[in-house]
Amino acid sequence: MRKILVLGAGKSTSYLLDYFLEKSATEQLEITIGDLKPDYIPDQIKNHPLCKVVKLDIFNDAMRKEQVQKSTIVVSMLPAHLHLVVAKDCLQFNKHLITASYVSPELKKLSQEVKDKRLIFMNEIGLDPGIDHMSAMQVIDRIRNQGGKMLLFESFTGGLVAPESDTNLWNYKFTWNPRNVVLAGQGGAAKFIQEDTYKYIPYHRLFRRTEFFDIEDYGRFEGYANRDSLKYREAYGLQDALTLYRGTLRRVGFSKAWNLFVQLGMTDDGYEVENSQGMSYRDFTNLFLPYSPTDSVELKLRHYLKIDQDDIMWEKLLELDLFNAEKKIPLTKASPAQMLQYILEDSWSLDDDDKDMIVMYHKFGYELNGEKHQIDSNMVVTGENRTHTAMAKTVGLPVAMATLAILNRKITSPGVQIPLQSEVYEPILAELEQYGIKFKEFEVTYLGYNPETFFV
Amino acid sequence: MRKILVLGAGKSTSYLLDYFLEKSATEQLEITIGDLKPDYIPDQIKNHPLCKVVKLDIFNDAMRKEQVQKSTIVVSMLPAHLHLVVAKDCLQFNKHLITASYVSPELKKLSQEVKDKRLIFMNEIGLDPGIDHMSAMQVIDRIRNQGGKMLLFESFTGGLVAPESDTNLWNYKFTWNPRNVVLAGQGGAAKFIQEDTYKYIPYHRLFRRTEFFDIEDYGRFEGYANRDSLKYREAYGLQDALTLYRGTLRRVGFSKAWNLFVQLGMTDDGYEVENSQGMSYRDFTNLFLPYSPTDSVELKLRHYLKIDQDDIMWEKLLELDLFNAEKKIPLTKASPAQMLQYILEDSWSLDDDDKDMIVMYHKFGYELNGEKHQIDSNMVVTGENRTHTAMAKTVGLPVAMATLAILNRKITSPGVQIPLQSEVYEPILAELEQYGIKFKEFEVTYLGYNPETFFV
Repeated sequence: MRKILVLGAGKSTSYLLDYFLEKSATEQLEITIGDLKPDYIPDQIKNHPLCKVVKLDIFNDAMRKEQVQKSTIVVSMLPAHLHLVVAKDCLQFNKHLITASYVSPELKKLSQEVKDKRLIFMNEIGLDPGIDHMSAMQVIDRIRNQGGKMLLFESFTGGLVAPESDTNLWNYKFTWNPRNVVLAGQGGAAKFIQEDTYKYIPYHRLFRRTEFFDIEDYGRFEGYANRDSLKYREAYGLQDALTLYRGTLRRVGFSKAWNLFVQLGMTDDGYEVENSQGMSYRDFTNLFLPYSPTDSVELKLRHYLKIDQDDIMWEKLLELDLFNAEKKIPLTKASPAQMLQYILEDSWSLDDDDKDMIVMYHKFGYELNGEKHQIDSNMVVTGENRTHTAMAKTVGLPVAMATLAILNRKITSPGVQIPLQSEVYEPILAELEQYGIKFKEFEVTYLGYNPETFFV
Repeated sequence: MRKILVLGAGKSTSYLLDYFLEKSATEQLEITIGDLKPDYIPDQIKNHPLCKVVKLDIFNDAMRKEQVQKSTIVVSMLPAHLHLVVAKDCLQFNKHLITASYVSPELKKLSQEVKDKRLIFMNEIGLDPGIDHMSAMQVIDRIRNQGGKMLLFESFTGGLVAPESDTNLWNYKFTWNPRNVVLAGQGGAAKFIQEDTYKYIPYHRLFRRTEFFDIEDYGRFEGYANRDSLKYREAYGLQDALTLYRGTLRRVGFSKAWNLFVQLGMTDDGYEVENSQGMSYRDFTNLFLPYSPTDSVELKLRHYLKIDQDDIMWEKLLELDLFNAEKKIPLTKASPAQMLQYILEDSWSLDDDDKDMIVMYHKFGYELNGEKHQIDSNMVVTGENRTHTAMAKTVGLPVAMATLAILNRKITSPGVQIPLQSEVYEPILAELEQYGIKFKEFEVTYLGYNPETFFV
C-alpha cells in the first residue's frame, strides 16, 4: 500500500478526498487525514476502510514528524504559511510534497536540496494558481512547437455564483474567502504591458478599467487587472510578448458598483474606525460622507458619487441595506474593510442549495508564417452543492491527480516546481476533462490589444 | 556674554540669525553657527563681530559635544531626525534646547529627566507647528477665561506664492520642500470630527472635499484636510468640541487640478517605473492611460478624466508640458511621484525675484451665556526676497524669540514642551506683531460646521 498523508481537511478537500478514496482499492492507496478538528470530516470519508483520521496539531513537532515519516507522499492543504514546516519534514524523511499554494521565497530556497534528494515538491497545482498555468502552457507550447511567436497573453479567472443561484443585483455571492474579495487589488498599482508599453492603474481606478468577455451559454463577464501581470513572464517564456495582462472575472456591472465602495473609502483596511462596535449600517455609510444638518445620508451619497435616482447602482446599494439604521455591526476595533465585509456577508452568503461557478478565460495572440492569429479559450465549471463546490473541484482534483501521477512515476522531474512542464500538464489536463473540467478553444481574428473593449 | 549655539544654517535661518545678531550687543549674545557647509553662510553674518562659524559634522560626537558644552543654550535647525542626539548632549551638559520640529516619541521619553534638571526643551515653535499652536491657544484660553465652552476649532495653513509673483494657472510655486507637496495627504485616510461625528476621507477623494476661505485684500483660498485633525485634541483641551478640522491652504482651483494627478496615479511613491531614465513627459503621462493604436495621449487623458476642451483644467496640464515628447526625465529607478516632482519643478520653481506668502486661518466656535459665537482669525505674511522668505520669517522668528525669552528667564517652566502655555505664547505673539506677523480677528455668525462651503 502507498500511504498518502493529507494535512488539513478544510472546505476545498471534498473532491480531493473522494478521488483518493475512489482509487484507493485499485491503486492500493491508504489515506491518512491529519486535521486539528477531525469532527468536521463527513462520516462517509471517516468510515472508509482505507481512510484513517488523526487529530493533528501542526505545531506539535513530534506528532507531525511521526505522520510524515510513516507516509509515502504528503499533500498539504493547510493555509499557505504552514507549508514550510511540512516541507522541511518532507526533506528530512525523503517524502514528495504537493500543495496548491504559491511558492514562497523560503520554500524556493530548499530547491537544490530537494533536487539533490530526487524529491518532487509540486506547488501551485490548484485552480489559480494551477489550472491556469497548465491550460496556458499547453497552448503556448503548442504554438511554439508549430514555430509560432507569442505576441499576446491575457488570462482571467473568477470564482462566481452559478446562473441558477444568481439571485441578487450584484450577480455575486461569497464562494470563497470574503476578506480576499474586499481587499482585492489593494497594496499597490496594477502593472501590465499593452502593445509593448508598460501601464499602471492605481487602486482607486482599477474597477473602472475593465475588459469584457463573452462565453457561449453563459453571457458576458468583465475582468479587472491583477496587481502584477508580469509575475510569470519569464516562467512562461513570454519576455518578448507585446501584451501581458492577468485579471479577475466578475459579472458585468459588478466592478462599476464595487467602485462605489472604493470611492467612499469603505475597503480601507489600514485604520480602526472609532466606536465601531454596535454602529449601524447607516452610520457606517455616513462616516465617509460630509456632515449635513439637514440632508439625508441617502442624498449625500447620491450627490457625492453622482448616482441618478433611476441608476441601477442605487438599487444595488439598497439591496445591501447600506442605509439601514437598525442593523448593527458587532465588531470591535474594526477597519472599514472588516465592517464592509460584515455588511456584505449579510447579503452575499451562499444559501444551502446555492451553487458556485468557476470561469477561466485565456487569450493567446501569436505570429505564424508571417500571419497573426488568436486563440481564445475558456472553461466554466459549476458546483454540485455546498460541499462539492466548483472551487473544491478545480482546486482539489489537480492536486489529487498530481499526487497519484507522482506515486505512479508519471511525473519524475525532481525539485521545487510549478506545473509548467508537459510531463505534468498533459496527463492532468486530459484526466480533468473526464471530470468535466474542460477548455473550449476558438480561433478568432487577431486584434492585438483592443482598446475598445477596455476603455469604457 | 550668553552663548547661543545654532546648529544648521539652512534656508529657514535667515531671520533667526538676523534677529540674534541685531540683539547681540544689547542682549550680550555671542552666536556660534555650527554647519557642515559654512561656505554657504552669507558674509554679513559670518563677518559680524559677535558671530563665529564652525564647520561641524553633527555625527562627530567629540566636536558636537564640545560646542554644546561651551554654549549657554542650543538652537537646533537641523533636519528633525537629528535633534535627538543633540538633545542628549543638552541633557549631559545642562543646556536648554529649542527646535521648530514635532516632538518625537524618543524625545518625549526624556521628559522627566529634562524636568528633573530644570531644563527647557522647547519644540514645535516655528510656523506650523508653532505659530498655529500659539495663536490658537491665545484665543481658546481667552474664550475659556470668559467662561465660554469651545464647540468648533478649524485651522488651516498654506505656504504659497505672493500675489505679485503668482504668475501661473495653478497659482502655486514650490516655496518649500517639493517632495512634501507631491506626497501630501498620502499614507492613510484623513480623519476629523464634524458636529460630533467622526469622518474619514480616503486619499483619492481628499482633493475633492475642500472648504473655502475669504481673506480681505487677498481673495479666496481653499483648504483640504490633514491626515490627523485630532492630533492636538487633548493638548488643546478640546475633547468636548463638536468639530475639529485641520488642513492645508491653497488658492481656489489648485485641489481640483491636483486631483487629476491623484486620479491618474502619478503621485504614487510606492513602486519604481520601468525604464524611467530618459522617459519623455509625454510617455510618462501615457503610462497611466489605456493603450490605443490610434488615439493621442491628449484625447485619452481628456476622455479618461472627462475634461472638456474649454475646461481650464486642460490649460493647467498644458502649462506643465505634460504632453511634451521632447522634454526628458533623467531620473533612474524613479517612482511616479519622483517623476511628477521633476516635471513640476520644471514649471513651479521660484524665479530670482519671486516672493512667497504664508497664510493661516483659524475658526473658533463657542458657547457663552447660552449664546453661540464664532471668531475667525487670519494671518498673511509675504516674503521680501529669496533668502528672506515669509517661510524663513515665520519659522525662524518664533524660535529666536523663544531662545531669548528662555535666556532672560521670561519662560521658566521646565520640561520637553510645545508652546501651549500663556507664559510662552503671550510675549512671543506680542513681539511677532512688531515684525508684521499679526492675526486679524473677526466676529462672525456661528454656523457650526457649514457643509455648503465643503460640499462641492
